[in-house]
Amino acid sequence: MKRLSEMTQSELISFRDAAAKEYEACKAKNLKLDMSRGKPGTEQLNLSNEMLSLPKDGNFVIDGIDVRNYGNLDGIPSCRAMFADILGVKKEEVFAAGSASLNLMYDVIAKAYTHGLLHSDTPWSKLDKVKFLCPAPGYDRHFTICESFGMEMITIPLNDDGPDMDLVEKYVKDAAVKGIWCVPKYSNPDGVIYSDATVARIANLKPAAKDFVIMWDNAYCVHEFDGPFVPFKDILTECRNAGSPDMVYEFASTSKITFPGAGVACFACSEANMAYMKTLLNAETISYDKMNQYRHVLFLRDRAGTLAHMQKHAAIMKPKFDAVLAALDTKIAPLGIATWRRPKGGYFISLYTMDGCAKRTHQLMKEAGVVMTGAGATYPYGKDPKDSNLRIAPSLPPIEELRAASDVLCTCLKLAAAEKLLG
Amino acid sequence: MKRLSEMTQSELISFRDAAAKEYEACKAKNLKLDMSRGKPGTEQLNLSNEMLSLPKDGNFVIDGIDVRNYGNLDGIPSCRAMFADILGVKKEEVFAAGSASLNLMYDVIAKAYTHGLLHSDTPWSKLDKVKFLCPAPGYDRHFTICESFGMEMITIPLNDDGPDMDLVEKYVKDAAVKGIWCVPKYSNPDGVIYSDATVARIANLKPAAKDFVIMWDNAYCVHEFDGPFVPFKDILTECRNAGSPDMVYEFASTSKITFPGAGVACFACSEANMAYMKTLLNAETISYDKMNQYRHVLFLRDRAGTLAHMQKHAAIMKPKFDAVLAALDTKIAPLGIATWRRPKGGYFISLYTMDGCAKRTHQLMKEAGVVMTGAGATYPYGKDPKDSNLRIAPSLPPIEELRAASDVLCTCLKLAAAEKLLG
Repeated sequence: MKRLSEMTQSELISFRDAAAKEYEACKAKNLKLDMSRGKPGTEQLNLSNEMLSLPKDGNFVIDGIDVRNYGNLDGIPSCRAMFADILGVKKEEVFAAGSASLNLMYDVIAKAYTHGLLHSDTPWSKLDKVKFLCPAPGYDRHFTICESFGMEMITIPLNDDGPDMDLVEKYVKDAAVKGIWCVPKYSNPDGVIYSDATVARIANLKPAAKDFVIMWDNAYCVHEFDGPFVPFKDILTECRNAGSPDMVYEFASTSKITFPGAGVACFACSEANMAYMKTLLNAETISYDKMNQYRHVLFLRDRAGTLAHMQKHAAIMKPKFDAVLAALDTKIAPLGIATWRRPKGGYFISLYTMDGCAKRTHQLMKEAGVVMTGAGATYPYGKDPKDSNLRIAPSLPPIEELRAASDVLCTCLKLAAAEKLLG
Repeated sequence: MKRLSEMTQSELISFRDAAAKEYEACKAKNLKLDMSRGKPGTEQLNLSNEMLSLPKDGNFVIDGIDVRNYGNLDGIPSCRAMFADILGVKKEEVFAAGSASLNLMYDVIAKAYTHGLLHSDTPWSKLDKVKFLCPAPGYDRHFTICESFGMEMITIPLNDDGPDMDLVEKYVKDAAVKGIWCVPKYSNPDGVIYSDATVARIANLKPAAKDFVIMWDNAYCVHEFDGPFVPFKDILTECRNAGSPDMVYEFASTSKITFPGAGVACFACSEANMAYMKTLLNAETISYDKMNQYRHVLFLRDRAGTLAHMQKHAAIMKPKFDAVLAALDTKIAPLGIATWRRPKGGYFISLYTMDGCAKRTHQLMKEAGVVMTGAGATYPYGKDPKDSNLRIAPSLPPIEELRAASDVLCTCLKLAAAEKLLG
């Protein structure tokens, strides 16, 4: 195969016509496939079914607490200890809550707006302008929170070792810049792991805003599917050592360990932040679902138990990622019309089409019956400046469907690229 | 026995000395009893244990939805339908969420502050003053939400048929008055059921604030423990008929049907409010715990199933309420030093001491090892103008402990009253 950039005009026309024919054949299959969201597949969900009938012994008391009743706003101690072990933080730094870490992230931002954070002079709702740093490509739901509160989002390019820290360090000199979103391990969607140097630079930020907050969404902290668990710096310790212990909130959940629809989420922060946030959260709820926390403790136990469980996910996930990559490697790489990363964990493959081809590729796929995350969704305001990034989520479809969807993807990439080059 | 008000000075002194001796005897028992919060007792929790191993058949799909996975922000349709049946509203008007209705109430107020409600001109955080009507005695956690947001609370006396509506109708003429808290059935703590006339007047309010909100906390909607289910007006229909369909949010939960620590909560509102609130909630979370919603649907099914289950609670609750009332009837009524209501549902007995005796009674009980809700907690800012109301929560202690605690209560009431009368 020849690279498209090296083709003559007539070669390109033949190429496009062949791709168009291929595409019509795809459409004729009347597919209905979904690669849009990072949802675990049924096989993965089944891995945790036995948790649902725990406890087996009819005992509902743990840590001296009847988990069925009210109380213990910050969760049962055993569950806090489990997350502390997983994240490498202290038990006292963990708040175990309900099923959604997104809810906790929203809560921290919402409380910044209504009450202010620990070091705020004033609630953010009283400020004329609040800016937030958004490494991108990134997680669309982080950006949705910013938009919901009317923040001004500043796009920060994401490199192989994390956010462009030169830019971050420049922007935090502006006191209106109040925080940054980070998915530090297997970033959504690029699967990048922040380097130790990047983590150190983040922890050592000296923002003009004294209530600047690092929103450390460690969603994929134990989510390797290729190779062993990768140890990772604990951001709370890093910030403490840098003299800014209260600058970070870390988030995690079991959504992709047990069940997205019935997991346990937590946040971790300094004990000063914890005391402050608990005072605010005490007005919001009496306690979160401790029964579910208890089930998780019985099922996962600790980091070792969780990592053992994650190997079962890995065995299901790796072939799916391999299937997508194999299609791209075979059909697209020789043409030079797209690039992609090869993550060893997380939930996504981040694909970069030729500039100006992401939306068209997405549209072609949709018309062929394959749903993908919207082109642009990985950027603030849904606007990808190069119209290049597409997020592929291989986890949900069964592998045969995924192969079919990958074939459609390759066909659409070819057609979109040829169309673009032919103007 | 003679009424204390009819005693001579020397009779009073003898009475006080006898009460003081009785009190010392109480203290000598080194009791550790808790009548402070409306927590179900262990026997009640056990009523729902079998729900925890549902489903038995390994089927996790209901309404075409795998409850273990992400999705369905507003809950599974079957769970929405169950709550709709219980509350007498339409399925489309119900949003089924996580375990805590308090969280949903907080959320509505928080969103009023950060984004405004459907008919708000501006988010409440931009206003100089927000006032809220607080029928009292009332639920301390409602007042805590108001305090957390810095609202000015206006106390509305609670009568036998609900809030003093003359006052309510007067206050809503002030555009700074943005809402009212209501616990319409078995009010916390008085156990009052709002009359149909009161409900009609509430629904027909014409507040100056067009984003005025009725916070209808129907916490005890099916919580009769003495006699059959009492049918109750559906506030959504009442408001719709009055031409103000968007003026109310209703809240309910299974906290005191199944488990306080692992129930399902919901809110109900007009479809216009629902569409608005879902747009805001979509930024906050992907979905709530649908697995737990599913368990509840399998266990409770509908209103009939729920009412049948509530009869089991009633069989446990009634003897506990009777025990407290028997002590008060025998030992306190003849003395004329306190009054109380005799609720047929809900979780509390509301006790009115002689003016100026609630705090002292509470203190005496505490020193004798019996924890009660703080005196004053049932009023905005924790300030009971008459220092008279005490909230008794009989559900948690086993009945023998409850009898012991009731005896201590009677002794403390006598001692506090005698001290007061003797100056």
